[in-house]
Amino acid sequence: MSFDPSSLNYNADGLIPAVAQDAGDGAVLMMAWMNAEAVARTLETGRVTYWSRSRQAYWVKGESSGHVQELVDLRLDCDRDCLLVLVRQTGPACHTNRRSCFYTAVRDGQETELMTPIV
Amino acid sequence: MSFDPSSLNYNADGLIPAVAQDAGDGAVLMMAWMNAEAVARTLETGRVTYWSRSRQAYWVKGESSGHVQELVDLRLDCDRDCLLVLVRQTGPACHTNRRSCFYTAVRDGQETELMTPIV
Repeated sequence: MSFDPSSLNYNADGLIPAVAQDAGDGAVLMMAWMNAEAVARTLETGRVTYWSRSRQAYWVKGESSGHVQELVDLRLDCDRDCLLVLVRQTGPACHTNRRSCFYTAVRDGQETELMTPIV
Repeated sequence: MSFDPSSLNYNADGLIPAVAQDAGDGAVLMMAWMNAEAVARTLETGRVTYWSRSRQAYWVKGESSGHVQELVDLRLDCDRDCLLVLVRQTGPACHTNRRSCFYTAVRDGQETELMTPIV
């Protein structure tokens, strides 16, 4: 079946959550949002492109930081309301310079930092 | 730092996306939503508990299907607006009986099914 980005289920703001996973070792790196055009651009360019809600602008991941995400595979879920993007990540994915945004665990009721920034 | 579920950043509906990942092999299984009470219940019971937007009710994953998710680790992202739950998944995670909800890939402009239902 031919894929049409407009066939996805977007929220009231026209956005769909996209989870980025390292295609190599499966680490979940981050979650951000795409609109239909960001999905289309990601597929066309092979550069993962989100929609920045704070800046209200397209966000080619790594455009300023150099920490780009090369698209390896784009997947959608059963409800067509969430995306999984498998990527080759250059440098850290998180703006804090940690490899993954999910660097805090909750263990025994305490927040525990699992990763330190890459220097 | 002590963890308080109310310290997370929820959307206008009081919900936060939660990505479930298999703690064994790192497969991303599904994405669903939690409210603060679902986060608290997940941590207290060790059974991953979402908020069902369609049913407007707590959804102890696997309660009816038996396809439960045992919590291994709960992580939050840098913006505190997305959760990653590492789980031990019994049976398929997807209601279609596939292991993961992300069973459709977009390749060369076509939707391609990567998994078949577990019989």
